[in-house]
Amino acid sequence: MEIFRDPEIARRTLWEAKQSGRSIGLIPTMGALHEGHLSLVLSAQKQGDSTLVTLFVNPSQFGPNEDFSKYPRTEEADLQRLESIGTDWVLIPTSQQVYPEGYSTWIEPPQVATRWEGEIRPGHFRGVATVVLKLFLMAPADRAYFGQKDYQQVRVIEQMVRDLGYPIDVRVCDTIRELDGLAMSSRNRYLDPDQRQRALAIWRSILLVRSLASQGVIDTAVIQQQARASLLENGLDSIDYAVLADAVTLEPLRRIDRPAVYLVAGRLGNTRLIDNCLL
Amino acid sequence: MEIFRDPEIARRTLWEAKQSGRSIGLIPTMGALHEGHLSLVLSAQKQGDSTLVTLFVNPSQFGPNEDFSKYPRTEEADLQRLESIGTDWVLIPTSQQVYPEGYSTWIEPPQVATRWEGEIRPGHFRGVATVVLKLFLMAPADRAYFGQKDYQQVRVIEQMVRDLGYPIDVRVCDTIRELDGLAMSSRNRYLDPDQRQRALAIWRSILLVRSLASQGVIDTAVIQQQARASLLENGLDSIDYAVLADAVTLEPLRRIDRPAVYLVAGRLGNTRLIDNCLL
Repeated sequence: MEIFRDPEIARRTLWEAKQSGRSIGLIPTMGALHEGHLSLVLSAQKQGDSTLVTLFVNPSQFGPNEDFSKYPRTEEADLQRLESIGTDWVLIPTSQQVYPEGYSTWIEPPQVATRWEGEIRPGHFRGVATVVLKLFLMAPADRAYFGQKDYQQVRVIEQMVRDLGYPIDVRVCDTIRELDGLAMSSRNRYLDPDQRQRALAIWRSILLVRSLASQGVIDTAVIQQQARASLLENGLDSIDYAVLADAVTLEPLRRIDRPAVYLVAGRLGNTRLIDNCLL
Repeated sequence: MEIFRDPEIARRTLWEAKQSGRSIGLIPTMGALHEGHLSLVLSAQKQGDSTLVTLFVNPSQFGPNEDFSKYPRTEEADLQRLESIGTDWVLIPTSQQVYPEGYSTWIEPPQVATRWEGEIRPGHFRGVATVVLKLFLMAPADRAYFGQKDYQQVRVIEQMVRDLGYPIDVRVCDTIRELDGLAMSSRNRYLDPDQRQRALAIWRSILLVRSLASQGVIDTAVIQQQARASLLENGLDSIDYAVLADAVTLEPLRRIDRPAVYLVAGRLGNTRLIDNCLL
């Protein structure tokens, strides 16, 4: 496994690999790797791609009162895990390399970034879209792999790639869950044992929404009301949103009359968790 | 000369050319070609590049009260001129191809876009930066050629390329002028004979500013006052700005104590002209 700390060398290496006929899969991460991240690497390998994982805690996607400074940084463990599954390359750029002095060009993300996370975390998707484009440019890949767990992020990136005509294939991989259903997230490690238990409220609400939808309930107000009640009863401290939205545009839905997604975000103490499921 | 109307075919052709070892020069234009544009193609050829010229009147860089609909469209003449100087490829995308339905991703241009044209034409550089990035992605070139005549545009593109780490070399070519000094511009054809004569006020102001600077005048307020007086005396109907700015940041300068640029924009009837010179 080759570790790059200079994006320019990463780019050159990938160009050469590309020109020798290798297909390349890019897996952008903020480190603090868990099974979900590793499953992205494995998906890329299954696809036949040589894999480049980036580890970069992107400051521009955190708000001023968010957890940038305390976001877990576990580089040594991350590298061991990546090596153990046969990752080809890892790129670990510095903030200075990604945002050199005087940096001031940003991607204004597409419409689909406006609601939900976009409302609660102003500027978040602007930071995400910008860093993803920059990573695409640093690591010219054929495919980029993202987890469905960050559903709106995936839609933002898919739409950005479509709008810009960026020549990369965005692949979305299933959310990986703990045995009890909690979606894997680097932020789960913030939870104390009691919060960890109560975090299951999110998964329970997903099961509830799925069940209601499969019973033929199509009035989203009814489903959302029950989901919210369930989230709070099962121990979530507060709900940021728990909604049914058009799976493509993420606009709120009144009735489930097209592909829909249940999007949920809530808090346990200072920890914010998100999850979703397609219906 | 090969003419592409499908960006996807252009991209594939350029990739193949690149892989067979040809270097590629991109010359983005809005058509209505004049000697200035042609000189960009010739510069690229001198550099050893195969040349791709794009012809696209980009709607997103025009304000609602600007001249998008009446901007000159002279495709047949443009193609003849390009053919006559040995251009390799021309790409003529449609608005629908560049901005498909639901398009909503934009480049928020760098700081250097804020003043001057940025103030007078809100959204202009956002449209320029977006279309230039899109053209870069459609036509993967080694170098891109722009005219110094649009000085702030050049600085915006240079800074965007630097910020994004976009792998392209931006080349800036000298402004080409009519025999009497008027900078070539597609908008010159809007001028009636009287306005055409009065348009020389801009060139005269450049000569004046150069002369004052070379005499050692470094107080920009003095120079600007004389430049403005000269512009109006020589027949400009109104001045949008006539300033001395830092040649890199485009921030206003009090004293010429570093590389500076004289930036001038003004109007003759409904026609708006811009020009500049480095000091």
